[in-house]
Amino acid sequence: MIEVGFIGLGNMGQPMVKNLLKAGFKVKVYNRTPNKASEVVEAGAEQVNRPCDTVTPDGIVVTMVSNDQVLEELVYSPDGIGEKLGKDGIHLSMSTVAPDTSRRLAKYHQEKGSFYIASPVFGRPEAAEAQKLWVMSSGNQGAKERVKPIQEAMGQKVFDLGEEPGNANVVKLGGNFMIMAAMEAMAEAFNLAEKNGMDRETVAEVYTSTLFNCTVYNGYGAMIAKKMFEPAGFQLALGLKDCNLVLDEANQTKTPMPLANLVHNRLLASAAKGRGNQDWSALTKLANEEAGME
Amino acid sequence: MIEVGFIGLGNMGQPMVKNLLKAGFKVKVYNRTPNKASEVVEAGAEQVNRPCDTVTPDGIVVTMVSNDQVLEELVYSPDGIGEKLGKDGIHLSMSTVAPDTSRRLAKYHQEKGSFYIASPVFGRPEAAEAQKLWVMSSGNQGAKERVKPIQEAMGQKVFDLGEEPGNANVVKLGGNFMIMAAMEAMAEAFNLAEKNGMDRETVAEVYTSTLFNCTVYNGYGAMIAKKMFEPAGFQLALGLKDCNLVLDEANQTKTPMPLANLVHNRLLASAAKGRGNQDWSALTKLANEEAGME
Repeated sequence: MIEVGFIGLGNMGQPMVKNLLKAGFKVKVYNRTPNKASEVVEAGAEQVNRPCDTVTPDGIVVTMVSNDQVLEELVYSPDGIGEKLGKDGIHLSMSTVAPDTSRRLAKYHQEKGSFYIASPVFGRPEAAEAQKLWVMSSGNQGAKERVKPIQEAMGQKVFDLGEEPGNANVVKLGGNFMIMAAMEAMAEAFNLAEKNGMDRETVAEVYTSTLFNCTVYNGYGAMIAKKMFEPAGFQLALGLKDCNLVLDEANQTKTPMPLANLVHNRLLASAAKGRGNQDWSALTKLANEEAGME
Repeated sequence: MIEVGFIGLGNMGQPMVKNLLKAGFKVKVYNRTPNKASEVVEAGAEQVNRPCDTVTPDGIVVTMVSNDQVLEELVYSPDGIGEKLGKDGIHLSMSTVAPDTSRRLAKYHQEKGSFYIASPVFGRPEAAEAQKLWVMSSGNQGAKERVKPIQEAMGQKVFDLGEEPGNANVVKLGGNFMIMAAMEAMAEAFNLAEKNGMDRETVAEVYTSTLFNCTVYNGYGAMIAKKMFEPAGFQLALGLKDCNLVLDEANQTKTPMPLANLVHNRLLASAAKGRGNQDWSALTKLANEEAGME
């Protein structure tokens, strides 16, 4: 039975671990807040007390945590995975982080003889549960091949984005930005319809059954039409973090992104209004409020 | 054999007439520039010299023209269809025009005892050819039922948007705005990837085979990734006209639409640079140019 370490048992991590267990992997889990492990332990995972205890020498550790700083601490801290992963060990990093964080960690792991694969995913917790995540993958070719069965146990498709470690993160950030843009666009279009006396859900149905019949518009279209932003599948505070990463990357590469600036302002104002814990589609409340609507 | 009038033989009108002929309708066509009728005449349509000559008393006339002014002239001018349509005649208006234009024309036709159905479509000329248009429909219920076989001969689905004549136009304008927003979003995301050394088409493929697997992103994604904006399926100058209609409607109904303002500026600048005859996806050239890219 292949052993895998898994660090980070949030909304996404928990269903991902369950799918690894279902696929027959032996999984050692660690989470900063230990009581979040109860469900996966019940499902067969072994809980350990330190990040480094998830490591099997030469093995694979998956990380799925909330931001760059947490990820780097998990690698570099004295009880982190960095020193212990060892020659040929692989860090499969599935969090949404900056491309530069991946580049830095890839270099660090390389110096230790281990590998770093950037592997963020598209899909919300429901998709994770249903093993329907889309998994991106960039880094060393041989290491990518070794982690593929693990990625496939959690997702419906794996995209190979080359050997440059930051690539998968760039694509993930760009995708999250495109979701934010789609949410703002739907809000404005639905508001125009509502102001003309039409039913938002009927209008959403026209768009999402024709030109925009895809995951993002179907999922968020219904929420934005109904103005229902809870429960939070993906918290607005995390969306703001991702949007900041998009703008950082835009800044570094000198890529003006006026639409990213617009949605960044939406997220920032939403956070200022105390909506950080709501679903990120709540960024569309601002358009409603500006239009004098509930 | 049911007779139908058809006015407006542009990129969209021609394939639409051909599908009416295929479905067994007898079609009388009129176009301002007469020589554009040659293909449909060859396919079996009868060409007439004045708009009013397309009218069969109590019958149905379809209009598919480039803007509000042309449409109103076709109705009100001495040789227009307005006076001649007669009691129970129906004007099936498929152009993309302002909701207020539809409301005004509906009122005019009602005074004459005839009917006006607003029925703009989603889909480019290829979709028109393949009888794959999505057809929206708003206006008098009985008249909507009478025109349905005609709409179905040209499209894959008809959406009933109620009796208020402007509704279908509001939904059409909102949809065109959402397309513009999607194009700008893709341009910015693809540029970020290109600036990071990635292949635009690979990245477009990731987005359009996952979260954004729908008509708009698949079609325009490929064009924006390749930076190929010709031939023009839908001219940028017409996109600018539609965006102006969106902002007019936003203004009238007091619906702030910052993203619509952003894409409006893109279209305006593109027109200023002489790109009015290119496909409207050429609005994305500005993002490329701002990023110092070809």
